[in-house]
This record gives sequence, C-alpha cells and structure tokens, in this order.
Amino acid sequence: MDVISVIRAKRDRARLTDEQIDWVVDAYTRGEVADEQMSALAMAILLNGMDRAEIARWTAAMIASGERMDFSGLARPTADKHSTGGVGDKITLPLAPLVAACGAAVPQLSGRGLGHTGGTLDKLESIPGWRASLSNTEMLDVLRDAGAVICAAGDGLAPADRKLYALRDVTGTVESIPLIASSIMSKKIAEGTGSLVLDVKVGSGAFMKTLEDARELAATMVGLGTDHGVRTVALLTDMSVPLGLTAGNALEVRESVEVLAGGGPADVVELTLALARDMLAAAGLPDADPEKALADGSAMDVWRRMIRAQGGDPDAPLPAARETLVVPAPATGVLTALDAYAVGVAAWRLGAGRARKEDAVQLGAGVELHAKPGATVREGAPLLTLHTDTPERFPYAQEALAGAITVSPQGTPFTPRPIVLDRIA
Amino acid sequence: MDVISVIRAKRDRARLTDEQIDWVVDAYTRGEVADEQMSALAMAILLNGMDRAEIARWTAAMIASGERMDFSGLARPTADKHSTGGVGDKITLPLAPLVAACGAAVPQLSGRGLGHTGGTLDKLESIPGWRASLSNTEMLDVLRDAGAVICAAGDGLAPADRKLYALRDVTGTVESIPLIASSIMSKKIAEGTGSLVLDVKVGSGAFMKTLEDARELAATMVGLGTDHGVRTVALLTDMSVPLGLTAGNALEVRESVEVLAGGGPADVVELTLALARDMLAAAGLPDADPEKALADGSAMDVWRRMIRAQGGDPDAPLPAARETLVVPAPATGVLTALDAYAVGVAAWRLGAGRARKEDAVQLGAGVELHAKPGATVREGAPLLTLHTDTPERFPYAQEALAGAITVSPQGTPFTPRPIVLDRIA
Repeated sequence: MDVISVIRAKRDRARLTDEQIDWVVDAYTRGEVADEQMSALAMAILLNGMDRAEIARWTAAMIASGERMDFSGLARPTADKHSTGGVGDKITLPLAPLVAACGAAVPQLSGRGLGHTGGTLDKLESIPGWRASLSNTEMLDVLRDAGAVICAAGDGLAPADRKLYALRDVTGTVESIPLIASSIMSKKIAEGTGSLVLDVKVGSGAFMKTLEDARELAATMVGLGTDHGVRTVALLTDMSVPLGLTAGNALEVRESVEVLAGGGPADVVELTLALARDMLAAAGLPDADPEKALADGSAMDVWRRMIRAQGGDPDAPLPAARETLVVPAPATGVLTALDAYAVGVAAWRLGAGRARKEDAVQLGAGVELHAKPGATVREGAPLLTLHTDTPERFPYAQEALAGAITVSPQGTPFTPRPIVLDRIA
Repeated sequence: MDVISVIRAKRDRARLTDEQIDWVVDAYTRGEVADEQMSALAMAILLNGMDRAEIARWTAAMIASGERMDFSGLARPTADKHSTGGVGDKITLPLAPLVAACGAAVPQLSGRGLGHTGGTLDKLESIPGWRASLSNTEMLDVLRDAGAVICAAGDGLAPADRKLYALRDVTGTVESIPLIASSIMSKKIAEGTGSLVLDVKVGSGAFMKTLEDARELAATMVGLGTDHGVRTVALLTDMSVPLGLTAGNALEVRESVEVLAGGGPADVVELTLALARDMLAAAGLPDADPEKALADGSAMDVWRRMIRAQGGDPDAPLPAARETLVVPAPATGVLTALDAYAVGVAAWRLGAGRARKEDAVQLGAGVELHAKPGATVREGAPLLTLHTDTPERFPYAQEALAGAITVSPQGTPFTPRPIVLDRIA
C-alpha cells in the first residue's frame, strides 16, 4: 500500500477501499504517512466527500488506533452528550449532574475551547481547586461516587483523531462533514458510553450555519453511533443567539449553578431538560423526572459531590474580571437580533477564549447579556456588560459587536426561534 | 496575512488575490508556511483550479523567490527548449548543439529522471568524465566557448518551485495544469532565456494523455512566457510510441550521436529539426539552415566542444549493460502498436530510471527497439532487446511489456501518427 495511490484515489473521486482506509489511518498514527500527505488527503476528502460506508470505516479505524473504555461494570446505564459547540453553551455543567441525579451514570469527556466557542473544561477550571485531568481509575471512582464526571479525555482514546484534528486545525480542512462526524464519533464510541445524545448547533454562532448541513452532520453521526451499538439521538438546536445570558468561563459557571438551584435563564433550562429527557430515554430510564430533580435539589447535590471529588470547592467565590464596560442599547424598541457569533468573538477577544492551543484563558472574562431578542430595550440603558482583565481589549470586543445588535421600532412583531429545531433518531 | 485564510479561499473556490499569492509563496519558501499547509493548498488548487491571472502571479512569485540569470551580455540571441518528458526523449542532446551551430546561444538547464521518463542529465552522465554541475561562471564560459551548455539548474533559481515540486511529488498533487505550467515556466523565465520552444508530449508515455489537456497546458505556458517577455512557442508532439529506437541513458546518447553524424531514426531527426526551426525563428534567426548543420558536421563539432568543456570525452566508449535479453515478435504481421508507457516502465525497471530521488541509475540499462509501428515483423525474430546489470529484473520488465505489443495480420493498413500534432504560438 502506498500513500500517494490513496491520495490520488480520493483526489480522482474514487471510493477508498476498506484496506486503504485501515492502512492510511494506522500508518498516519505511526508516523509512516507524513503530515503533508495526510493534509492533502484531508483536503481531497473535504472537496470530494466520502460515502457512508467510507465514513464508517474511517471512524472504526480511528477507534482501533487506541484503547476503548468499558463502563459495563457499573451498576447504572451510561449516558453521554456531545455538543458541536456554541456561544454560551454551558449545558454540560447542569446537564451531567441532572442526568446522574435521575439514575444514569454520566462519563463526560470534554475539551477546551478554541476560537469563538468556549470549552467545558475551561469553564470548570474557574472553580478553585477543580482538576480536569484524571487517570482512568480516578475517573471511575468519581463516576461511582457522584454518578457523573466531567474530565479531559485521556491520550489513549482515538490517538489517530487527536493527531488528525490538530492537523486539520492548521490546514483549512476542518469544515468537512465526514471528517467532523468521524472525529466526534470515534472519541465518543471509544469512550464506551451505552447511549449518546448529540446537540448539533445551527446558526451564526455554530459550526453549521444551515439546517441542511446540520441535518446531514446529525444523520451521519446517528448512523455511526447506531452501527457501533450506541443508542444515539441528535437534537438540532438554535445557535443564532447566545445560550442564556453569559458567555465566558466563570460567568457561565455562575449561570449553570443558578439552573441547578432551580432558576437560570429559560432557554438554558429548556435545552437542559430536553437533552436530559433524551439521554434518560436512550439510557433506558424513560420514567425519570428531570424537572423534579432540578426542583428538589438532587441535581445540585450531585454537582457539589462531583466538583468536590475532582478537588474543587463548590462554595468558593468564582473569579471575577478586573474591569467591566457597559454597552448601552443603541435605540429604544424591540431587540430583534443579538448575533451569537459576534458575542462569541467579543468574549474571545476579551480573553475568555484562546487563539492558539497553548494560550491561557482569563477565567473572569466574557460578555454578560441584560436582554435577549424579543425584549423591549430603552436607548442608553445597559444591554451588555463586557468583562476583562485587559481593558485595552475593549475596543476589539466592541468592534466585533458592530452590527450584531438590531433594535426595531416598538411594536415590531417578534417570533422567537424555538430552541429545539429538529430531532434525528 | 494567515495561511489558513488563503487555503480556505481556494478551497471555497475563490480567486486568490495577488497579495495572497505573493505572501504564501514567499512564506512557504522561508519556512513560515509548513509543508502540511502548502500540500493542502496544492490539493485545493489541483481540484478547484486557478485562472490565468492567478497562474501568472503564482509564476511571478516563484521567479521572485530566487535569482534571475541574465544572458544579455552574450553576442548571440539565446534560445531554450523544454520538453514535458517522454519515453526515449533524447532530443535535447542533438538539438542544443544543432541550434548553437546555427548561431543561437543555448543555455539548457536540465533535470534528472523520475519514474518512467528519463532525465537529460542522467543520459549525459553516461559519457565518461562529463559533469552536470557548473557554477554560473563555468556555465557562461561553456556557453561562450561552445555556444551550448547542458547542465543542472543551480539552487538559486526559483527555490520556491524546487521546494514545492518536491512536496507535490509525495502528496499526489503533481497532476495540476496551473501547478505544472507555473513550475516549468518559473524556472525557464528565471533562467533568462530570450526565446523558448516547448515540446508538450501527448500520449500514453507522456504526462498529458489527451490532446485537450496538452493544448491547455501549452496555451497556459505560452501565455506565461509571452507575459514575461520571452518569445514562446509550443509544439504538441506524439508520445504514444517511444521516440527513436532506444530508451535508456547510454543507449540514447549513442542514438543522439548518430543523429549528429547525419543518421539516426527518422522520427528523432524530424522532431529535432522541427524544434530547431522554431527555436531559431524565435531567436530571430529564421534563415538559419539546421538541416545543413547536421549534414556538414558543424552540429557535431559543437557537441564535441560542449562535452569536452564539461569534462567529458566524446570519443570514450559508452558504458554497456552486463546482460541482455531479446524479446521476439509474438507473431508475423504488421506491428501496429508498441506502447510508450510500457516501454518506459520496462526501461525504468531494468535500472535506467529511479524510484526515489536518491537512487542511482544504471547507465547501460534500457530498452532497444528493432522495429517501430508500421513495420512488418516475423514471429520469433528479435523485436526488443532489454539491457540491464541486474538480470533478476528481466521478469519485471517483461511484465511491464505485457499487452504493449500489437501485431496485426499482414496487409492491415497502418497510418502512422505525425510527430508534430499541433503548434501553439
């Protein structure tokens, strides 16, 4: 087998054979296929596509490149969730303890943020003492003790994907549905969950800008999960406005704790409950009552136990940014748009996100919203508050927000987009 | 400027701007853009194309990456020729001295063979003592003394192309008309010739398999040359059968000397004269008589002077392979096909070519033809002779030749393809 013939095949729009896929993924992981060869192949895949059977084989080859975890020894059924990423998407934080409080085990391997969307681990690291990196044994201990664990994926899971993901990030080959689907699903399948709910975001703040693309990605991933014996469901959810009222690490933890305390913004609560219901149904617990678990404090109990088990202090004050700047409403009327992507970029520029993997994030930085689309706003009244430790960044954040806010004349009718746009099972 | 935005632009079918092209070619040459990024861009260019203005800018950026030679101090007009490569294509060897004998200066920077086509420098190195590497000063000295020089291109000419060519070779991104045209023309323009004749081969043994592709490549290159003030003409010439009666280094030198001595195979003589006439016309010497220069020995005189000036002994015996094997005609009748690609691969497997840049070639290895299509052959009579120092390779060469030879019943009409198929100026 030689790599140039594999690259040429995909370049010339042929199907890759099972043997070609198995060989090239393995040879790349071992370093026999060079980065410049794999990036040429990734571009050919991006432009010429892969069919469902090719994607399935590619995913299986990435799973086979590393270890596979096994939670079958746990007394509870396992349920996991993956979001394709959005602005203000802190849902994992209330969701994992909520689903655990309802009887499932939730092993949630998460990542860090890159670009305009935040990362779950970055958010949780704003809790003093909390540790993202656990050994497999520690992870199982937290899962047994608290019922839920949120931690970094170990190096042993799908190392081919780890290497390929880093390569795609620097070679303009990220935006490929076959490569995105196989990347997400290889990790989730290797992680060994029995059921999986996918939150596929659609809109300006999401990776998928159109419902069509999101539907194709969702259907591809559901097919891959099902083929590997993982009960998989996907919700397509709106990401044209930020989720909740905060985008930024500590700001989002605060909001998540509000949800666990029975409060919090309506859209965050609605999406958390919708995902919880599907996770519990997929885990074989259709009669569980997540609304009750939020109301009676049992989800909050799991949260506190989980945070403590990973070294965190759930009662410690969260870090706050050194400086704030209020952005006033530009006019009086109905707020009809508040663009998710612009808010995400503003939060990123304020220090909440990173431009390169090796950058640190500011735990207190971010954007706070005082109104969501549909609300009536008054000219000059606070609309957003920007938070940062580096006030010289305020102008760049304001620049990102230019054109993101639309205030229409009072009385303009406004129909909010539903949170859950579609469901694919 | 960042490389991912450049890759994305071409990936998404946008035109690259002048600034993007200048920056990416320069940054790649300096090592700021990594190989894996350039190979992804090369694949996007291969699949999505570049328009004429993009190709022109890309070529200019590659020329600007290095030095530019200048022959304006010579008393004679300069003329150069480039072939896209074919099986048995030894034309440069008789052509350069022939054109010099007619009054032009011929600075012929040549390359080595890779794959099934041979390289001019490999062929000349079968002459004992001959040196391919000359300093710029030495090159000018030979040119002044003999009127022609055939040598390796220095490292200073179009280093961006040198680096990109090596990358394309290992990433399945060779077969792109914009990248092929800019690669060839950046070197030829940097070399500083005043006029250029392109021999664009078409057929099984050539890079371009169809007349359409060859025409597009030729028109692209003629446009690039003209834009840079180089009088450029392209001939599209047949490469469905090998040129002449030999493929292999020393074997081809022998045949070239026969042409310079006034003999040699008809097709080699015809193509040599056709290219010479166009080179001389482009150099402003339309009244020169190359046929006379072959007949009166003046071309041979230049050849001997040129070989001697580069350390070679034109009278020394040429190396011969240790072993030969005769391939007999499979039937009696009219030889109607003798596939160029198959003969090229056979010569390569016998040791005449290299699989990797660092391999050595066997100077005596190759394939000798005893008949060309159109000839009547007798079953069992010698049709080919295979030459090699490593007789264990005979079976691999014979395997390459399977299906390459067609003998039709006696009396089958046969119309030979003309050598020159088209001319683009």
